[in-house]
Amino acid sequence: MTRTAAIVGAGLVGRSWTIVFARAGWQVRVYDRAEQARTDLPRAVSNALADLQAQGLLERDIESALAAISVHATLEQALDGAEYIQESGPEDLALKREIFSAIDAAADPDTIIATSSSGLKISAVAEHLPGRSRCLVAHPINPPHLVPCVELSPADWTTPAVVAKTADIMRDLGQAPVRLEREIDGFVVNRLQGALLNEALRLVEGGYVSAEGIDTAIRDGLGLRWSFMGPFETIDLNAPAGIGDYARRFGPMYAEMAVTQSATPNWTPQLIDRIEAERRAELPAAELPQRQAWRDRRLVGLVAHKKAAIGEDKK
Amino acid sequence: MTRTAAIVGAGLVGRSWTIVFARAGWQVRVYDRAEQARTDLPRAVSNALADLQAQGLLERDIESALAAISVHATLEQALDGAEYIQESGPEDLALKREIFSAIDAAADPDTIIATSSSGLKISAVAEHLPGRSRCLVAHPINPPHLVPCVELSPADWTTPAVVAKTADIMRDLGQAPVRLEREIDGFVVNRLQGALLNEALRLVEGGYVSAEGIDTAIRDGLGLRWSFMGPFETIDLNAPAGIGDYARRFGPMYAEMAVTQSATPNWTPQLIDRIEAERRAELPAAELPQRQAWRDRRLVGLVAHKKAAIGEDKK
Repeated sequence: MTRTAAIVGAGLVGRSWTIVFARAGWQVRVYDRAEQARTDLPRAVSNALADLQAQGLLERDIESALAAISVHATLEQALDGAEYIQESGPEDLALKREIFSAIDAAADPDTIIATSSSGLKISAVAEHLPGRSRCLVAHPINPPHLVPCVELSPADWTTPAVVAKTADIMRDLGQAPVRLEREIDGFVVNRLQGALLNEALRLVEGGYVSAEGIDTAIRDGLGLRWSFMGPFETIDLNAPAGIGDYARRFGPMYAEMAVTQSATPNWTPQLIDRIEAERRAELPAAELPQRQAWRDRRLVGLVAHKKAAIGEDKK
Repeated sequence: MTRTAAIVGAGLVGRSWTIVFARAGWQVRVYDRAEQARTDLPRAVSNALADLQAQGLLERDIESALAAISVHATLEQALDGAEYIQESGPEDLALKREIFSAIDAAADPDTIIATSSSGLKISAVAEHLPGRSRCLVAHPINPPHLVPCVELSPADWTTPAVVAKTADIMRDLGQAPVRLEREIDGFVVNRLQGALLNEALRLVEGGYVSAEGIDTAIRDGLGLRWSFMGPFETIDLNAPAGIGDYARRFGPMYAEMAVTQSATPNWTPQLIDRIEAERRAELPAAELPQRQAWRDRRLVGLVAHKKAAIGEDKK
C-alpha cells in the first residue's frame, strides 16, 4: 500500500524533502501558505529529479515521481491521510509553535509530526500541545535529497515508538538517521561542526595557519576518510588492535590538546573580516552563485560515487 | 634534469613517500638500517604502484617508476646527490635527534631535510645541528601516496626559502602543502581531528548519542562537503552573501557552544571501553585487517573519483 507523507513549508528544505519521499515511492502532499512557493514547487522538483536521473540516482521514472506529488492550498487538505508530517517553516519559535498547534489540531491522532528545525528543540516547539508525544525534530543536512544524515531529537515526552518509527521511515527513504537520546543545543551535527570551526578560528586567530590551510587540511586530508567512515571508525582502523589501542597511544595527546582548545573563539568582525578577505581574494563575491552551483554538482557526483562504491562492497 | 630525493626509513610511511616521488618522475634513493625493510621495499612499492595503475592514478609505467628507485645499505650512499631528504623513522626524540645529526653531517649543504614526524617539533629535533636552518617537519596524512595533505612546520630558525621550496616540491609531486607560520603541538590536522574527537567523546559520555551516531553524522553528513571543500569554503557557500553573512547568522550560536565544549573529555578506559564494545559489536576484532583493506580500497576509489571530478571542473 502506498504510504503518504505531508510536507508543510515548501521552501528549499521542504522541496528537498518532497523529492526524498517521492523518489522512494511515497505519496507526497505539500502545503505552503505562500502561493508563489506552491506554484514554483513542481518545476523545481522536476529539475532536481532530472539531475538525479542524469547521475543514476533515481530508481523510478520522473513522471511517476511527479504524479505522486500534490500541492494544496490549505493545511487540512495537505495533512489528509498522511502518516508522517515533515514541517520545514521559518526558524522562529513563535511561528513554529503556531504552525505546530495548527498541525496537531488537524492531523490524525497517530500521525507523526516532525520539524526540520536546526536550532529549536521540540521541547520548546510542542510542549503546549495535546499531541506532543508524537512530535520530534527530524533535522536534515541540506539538501536531504543528496545528504542522507537526519538527526532525530525527541523531547522527554516523545513516545519512544514514535522515534523508532521515524527512524524506520528514514531508513526506508534511504536516509541515515542519527538518534539523540537527550536534547542538546545544536544537536550533534552542528556541535561537531562547531567544535571543528571553533578550533579552526583559534588557529587562524593565533597566526598559525591561513583559512586556505585549514580547508586544505580537511579537503585534502581528514575529509577523505571521514566521507566514508566517520571519525570513530577512522581511529578504530588506525591502530593495529583497534580504537582501544589507538586511545592508549594518542588519547593523552588529545586530552592535553583539549586544555588548549577551551578558549571561546572570536566570531566577531575583526577575525571574520580577515578570513572573509582571504576567501574573497580566492573567490570574488560575484562568483558565489556559480561556485554554489559547482558545489551542488560535486555533491551529486560524490553521492553517485559513494552509491557505486557501496554497490561494489556488496558484491 | 631528473631531480633526486632520499628517503630515510623504509617503513609504511617511507615506502609511501617512495611512491610519491617515483611516480612524479624523481630518482628516489632509499635507506633503512634494517635489512628486512630494504629487502621488502621493492615488492611493496611494486604492488602499490599496480593498485594505482588499476585505478588510473599512475601517469607513468610501473617499470620506469621502479627503475627510478634504488635501495642503499648506508645513509651516505642514499643521500648522495639528493636535493631533498624525507626522514620517516620512529617517533622517538632521542632517536630522531641522532638520525638528524647523521643526516645533517652527511648531506650536501643545500639539501632540505624534512621529517614525517606527527608529534615532534623540528625545534626539538634539529636545534643542536649546524644545518638546522634547512630542517623542517613535512608531516603527511598516511598514506601520502593517496592522501595529498602535507603539513609543513618550520622552526623560528628555518630559512623561509627552505619552506617555500619544500612547498613547491610538494605541489610538483601532486601533494597539497599546508604551511604553519608558527609551531604548535599536534600541528593543524591533528588539532582539528582532536577538536572533533573531543566533542564526539563529550557527546557519547553525556549519553546524547552513540558512537555509531557520531560516525553517521560525519560519514553521511558533514564529511561529504568537507571531502571536496573544507570547513571554511563550506560555510562561505552556505549563506547568500558568504562567510561574513554566515558568521553574523550562526557565529553567536557557535561561540555559545564553545563555552559548553571546553571540558577535557575522558580518554581513559571507562568511556573508551564503552565505545570499543560498540565498535566490536559492529566489527569483530578478527575482522579489523579485512576492514582496513576495505578502507584502503575505498580511499583509492575516492581519490580516483576526486581526480576525475577535478578534471571535469577544468573542462
